[in-house]
Amino acid sequence: MMLTVFGSTALDTIRTPTRVLKDVLGGAATFAGISASFFVDTGLIAVIGKDFPKKYHKILASRLNLDGLSVKNGKTFRYDGKYDKTLSIRTTLRTELNVLENFQPVVPEQYRKSQFVYLANNDPDQNIELIKEFDRVKFSMCDTIEFWISTKKASVVKMFKQVDAVAINDEEAKLLTKESNLIKCAKKIMEWGTKYVIIKKGQHGSLLFFEDVIFPSAGLPLENVVDPTGAGDSFAGAMIGYLASKKKTNFSEIKNSVTYGNVMGSFAVEKYGIDALTTLKRSDIIKRHKQYEKMVRF
Amino acid sequence: MMLTVFGSTALDTIRTPTRVLKDVLGGAATFAGISASFFVDTGLIAVIGKDFPKKYHKILASRLNLDGLSVKNGKTFRYDGKYDKTLSIRTTLRTELNVLENFQPVVPEQYRKSQFVYLANNDPDQNIELIKEFDRVKFSMCDTIEFWISTKKASVVKMFKQVDAVAINDEEAKLLTKESNLIKCAKKIMEWGTKYVIIKKGQHGSLLFFEDVIFPSAGLPLENVVDPTGAGDSFAGAMIGYLASKKKTNFSEIKNSVTYGNVMGSFAVEKYGIDALTTLKRSDIIKRHKQYEKMVRF
Repeated sequence: MMLTVFGSTALDTIRTPTRVLKDVLGGAATFAGISASFFVDTGLIAVIGKDFPKKYHKILASRLNLDGLSVKNGKTFRYDGKYDKTLSIRTTLRTELNVLENFQPVVPEQYRKSQFVYLANNDPDQNIELIKEFDRVKFSMCDTIEFWISTKKASVVKMFKQVDAVAINDEEAKLLTKESNLIKCAKKIMEWGTKYVIIKKGQHGSLLFFEDVIFPSAGLPLENVVDPTGAGDSFAGAMIGYLASKKKTNFSEIKNSVTYGNVMGSFAVEKYGIDALTTLKRSDIIKRHKQYEKMVRF
Repeated sequence: MMLTVFGSTALDTIRTPTRVLKDVLGGAATFAGISASFFVDTGLIAVIGKDFPKKYHKILASRLNLDGLSVKNGKTFRYDGKYDKTLSIRTTLRTELNVLENFQPVVPEQYRKSQFVYLANNDPDQNIELIKEFDRVKFSMCDTIEFWISTKKASVVKMFKQVDAVAINDEEAKLLTKESNLIKCAKKIMEWGTKYVIIKKGQHGSLLFFEDVIFPSAGLPLENVVDPTGAGDSFAGAMIGYLASKKKTNFSEIKNSVTYGNVMGSFAVEKYGIDALTTLKRSDIIKRHKQYEKMVRF
């Protein structure tokens, strides 16, 4: 397996101004893994409960290697969140860890040689342990969320030291570093020991940092955004999926990977839940990426 | 005169978290005009009071043709505003129109042949009248602010019909069009009769719209921002100044002009008030623009 994605698979309840989705397929690793799978064979390490719908299992199986997916007695991890009418603020209404609590991830033998590993929004301590089981890592990347920053900040910082790249959204970067300027945020994160920092800014694109170089990339303007869920995860999945497909991690390819991140993030928000990614074709991605390249050129 | 800028010249009181500036040189036309002056000879149509400090007059005279500057009995227009600690929200504490009230702008004879005209944040009715006095306009652009949107929306829309381009910030575009999606905002503005729309997004850059084409450009990442005052005006001034210097208004040059807008906006915020623009050299602009070109390339 060239790429392993470790993280949450969830049943999401998403309340948008236009539609409410109940118990739909979600989770950071679901979005990141499926997004990556358009670029490279991807293995998933995650856990689901016995209640996990067959149709969702089928979706995962159609795009991912599931040797790393554990099925446990109990209910699948659930998340319930509500967007404001501008779709820019999400309020968490409920989180039920269920089978995710005390989950002991197992790395299948054929995943251990993965050269690319993505740690989606997981418990940082668990991530630190898991990454040790991979012995040929060429490029690893992680994300984190407000919950871990608030409850396990020291572990988050420790985790950052263990990976090559941190992809994090702007508000979480500010919260974590207590800086309001994004360059200052990134510098602090790099000082903690990671080589690359990618700050995701939603519709405004992203900033990639490496040493004293910055690559700012504009977001892909979209007229019809219906559900931002999973956009950041799709972004990160596309990045590492693209890099794994190229087997290269030079700065030029990392910049390219960010632009594929923009593209996959843009698809994710145009339909509800995972729908955009599951109905996507490889040719759609290539077409939109070409469009993007042309669009930003001057 | 190739370019005429019409708008406000002010004495600003700016309260930032790090410094309070009292009665310093400001105003939309001041920033836009000085910014444009780095690219092309620029004439200013504005009004000041007898209290306008000589040192500020000297600054204006050093960069602009002032045949269109009226000096009236009374006090200069004053603005007082305060930034929050992230420098992203500005609250207006006080506005004193003073000599700006009932000002009848006079267009000097040698300005009438200007091929490029920029109408800074002015009374839209006054702008509509003023633009009629130019008979060889190749490219005109205007901006507007919340105050006019709230008090004279119909006139703002009418003004938009009279110009080739509207440069407006994102929050004002949303307020004006009652849309939260920026593409929808721009489409509505174009439907009102303007050809090009530029939505300015502060640190996140801008979106340029023309027919069904969009040019998204990333902002120039900056580590030390001290005072955002005048950034949007400097952006617009650079745009039209650049175009006037090229005497071209094809889409490719308009895209280039936006990138110069990003660059001049980035300088504006690095020092307090007008200081960044008055200490700038032409070579600084060229250098930073090259940096920007290199930075965003992938």
